[in-house]
Amino acid sequence: MQAEIAFIEGGTVTSPQGFHAGAVAAGIKGSAGERPDLAVLFSQVPCVTAGLLTSNRIKSAPVLLCQERLKEGRRVVAVVANSGCANASTGDRGLADAVEMAALTAKAIGAEPEEVLVAGTGVIGRLLPMDRIGGGLQSISLSREGGHELARAIMTTDTFPKEAAVAVRSGDTRYTIGGVAKGSGMIHPNLATLLSFLTTDAAVDPAFLELALRRAAKVSFNMVSVDGDTSPSDTLLIMANGLTENPPIVDGTGPAEVFQDALNQVCIHLAKSIARDGEGATRLIEVTVNGAVSQADAVAAARTVVSSPLLKAAVYGCDPNWGRVVAAVGRSGAEVEEAMLDVSIGDILLLKAGSPEPLDNEGVVRILKGSEVPITVNLNLGTASATAWGCDLTEEYVVINSRYTT
Amino acid sequence: MQAEIAFIEGGTVTSPQGFHAGAVAAGIKGSAGERPDLAVLFSQVPCVTAGLLTSNRIKSAPVLLCQERLKEGRRVVAVVANSGCANASTGDRGLADAVEMAALTAKAIGAEPEEVLVAGTGVIGRLLPMDRIGGGLQSISLSREGGHELARAIMTTDTFPKEAAVAVRSGDTRYTIGGVAKGSGMIHPNLATLLSFLTTDAAVDPAFLELALRRAAKVSFNMVSVDGDTSPSDTLLIMANGLTENPPIVDGTGPAEVFQDALNQVCIHLAKSIARDGEGATRLIEVTVNGAVSQADAVAAARTVVSSPLLKAAVYGCDPNWGRVVAAVGRSGAEVEEAMLDVSIGDILLLKAGSPEPLDNEGVVRILKGSEVPITVNLNLGTASATAWGCDLTEEYVVINSRYTT
Repeated sequence: MQAEIAFIEGGTVTSPQGFHAGAVAAGIKGSAGERPDLAVLFSQVPCVTAGLLTSNRIKSAPVLLCQERLKEGRRVVAVVANSGCANASTGDRGLADAVEMAALTAKAIGAEPEEVLVAGTGVIGRLLPMDRIGGGLQSISLSREGGHELARAIMTTDTFPKEAAVAVRSGDTRYTIGGVAKGSGMIHPNLATLLSFLTTDAAVDPAFLELALRRAAKVSFNMVSVDGDTSPSDTLLIMANGLTENPPIVDGTGPAEVFQDALNQVCIHLAKSIARDGEGATRLIEVTVNGAVSQADAVAAARTVVSSPLLKAAVYGCDPNWGRVVAAVGRSGAEVEEAMLDVSIGDILLLKAGSPEPLDNEGVVRILKGSEVPITVNLNLGTASATAWGCDLTEEYVVINSRYTT
Repeated sequence: MQAEIAFIEGGTVTSPQGFHAGAVAAGIKGSAGERPDLAVLFSQVPCVTAGLLTSNRIKSAPVLLCQERLKEGRRVVAVVANSGCANASTGDRGLADAVEMAALTAKAIGAEPEEVLVAGTGVIGRLLPMDRIGGGLQSISLSREGGHELARAIMTTDTFPKEAAVAVRSGDTRYTIGGVAKGSGMIHPNLATLLSFLTTDAAVDPAFLELALRRAAKVSFNMVSVDGDTSPSDTLLIMANGLTENPPIVDGTGPAEVFQDALNQVCIHLAKSIARDGEGATRLIEVTVNGAVSQADAVAAARTVVSSPLLKAAVYGCDPNWGRVVAAVGRSGAEVEEAMLDVSIGDILLLKAGSPEPLDNEGVVRILKGSEVPITVNLNLGTASATAWGCDLTEEYVVINSRYTT
């Protein structure tokens, strides 16, 4: 089928038609109230909505609220999100606060309380300052450009906002998919991830929307690791408002393939941004595992290598200590035969069929000094492949996380 | 049964009768040859020996050699160990080098080559400098006090040697158990661990010796994590030379219970030393999980909490960010009900039945400033308990590991 997918310069979550957003500094991040920390994403038309929520057994109050409302299959008009406080591990009071936050938002935008979803990120185990949230919501003004404000308001230790949008031509239909995400610590998603909100003005069948989101997360957010810690707040939402007025896209069709491809591209873009901006990171690490006996093995090996603190520290120091790649592959649980194993950094082969090649030290160091470090492992046992993204481990990661609440 | 177990001041792996050791600076760690890096542990009498070897699918050449020789059930006279080079991921040449290293040692001490085991730790993917090893072995002199030298020679980034011995009175029998271990990075043992050699002059039935070692590892080395990376070199050996001339200790008896208790104490002592001396560490973290529905759940939860880089960094910064304990418990895979969960740091209860208690900030910070930080989680779902040990995460960990081979 004839299709074209192009990234939109300056694209964001409000790039698709009919989506508005806005944010304020409500003072949740601290009494100074200088950094935006409360945002609303709003659709002029109620949206078919799908979500993937954290696999952590401890779920934040916003996650529990989303879980409940998504289960009911209700159309969604808005998402209210805050940073600075995750509203997690806060008991019944936390749950009541999340419900109240949705109600306050609904009142401000003229919707039903049940049409609003809630997301939060920040310190765990602290109650939301509800007075500040009430005040903040009254002063948010929504606009077509507000996606950029929202992207900043959900940042915690992120150093730059994560935004993307693609313009899609699928046969005669033109639509847009946009998204935002935040990192940048407690990042090791599993079935769901961090905070990320995606939007589209395409009409999409609800069942396919959820399927497409699940598939996209699998090759993007679920392949990112900053520190191996899965957050209780992970929330990935997609809202489709149908303003394009196309026949709803259903699974197993040409338009579905195009939609999936476009959605994957947006998600991979956002996921790589998260890895690149991992707490304290100076480099993006991309690990590709080929020749695995199964997809699960390829994923396990790629994620284990990209998560190894020893490898991450070596990349930071541009130390060509490739043995740490081998050690990580070996403990990943994937089927490995040492005598079959190849390892490359960039285009330099370091281990061939289990034996070390003469080390081109300078060449490897040159690759390690780049802003993106590609590492390839070939297990040479099968045909499955997977790619995972992560970042180097720096002193700054420790500094950031040794004084997060203080 | 009447028993007494007492730690011996200055005790080490050569404290039991009939064990001798020695070490030299052979130049494996660098041409300077200032730090000891090659050691031999020797028993005057061939030993019943059991071992636990790495669960990493990539196994170092010394591990493969031990695996083979332990399988044959042969009595062992000596272990030769080096630091500075793991002889891992070195292909057939590496295996030949390990065999040669055992043969050279056998020649130097007058034993059969097959009676010698080999262990190595250090950089992965580099060949052993066999000329230096040959020269080094000729100049090692063995002595009853040599355990201390051996403990230093197997150190890599360790800042202090790990040694312990207990004197055991078990009914009318008196014997000694001694041991050494090394850390201090790539520490996340699973069925086996790092390098650790244990000795005893008790006579022990071979089947029980292996069982006892497995049980001891389970509550000691396997409950330690520095960085979540399991090494391809993990080797835990126990040698029993029987010089006490007691009736061999067999499973399911009173003397077996005493032996198990004493062995556990030595292993826990060494394991805690490894955690305390984790790369860059300033504090020991001890996590106890109570009230789990199964032992596996208790172990998973305790190990996940103690391994969380976010919690480790918070402890380093004395940041009372206890929400990270909750997040780690939640992703551990253990059965958790948020409304049942209690969390304490020291004796201060922070979360009770899933709801935060008023935060005694100063009190928690005071505990976090201690050299040992005890964290207790009660899942309140069952009766199983487990304790795990780890360390804080500091900038120094990153510095050490960003320039390990350079």
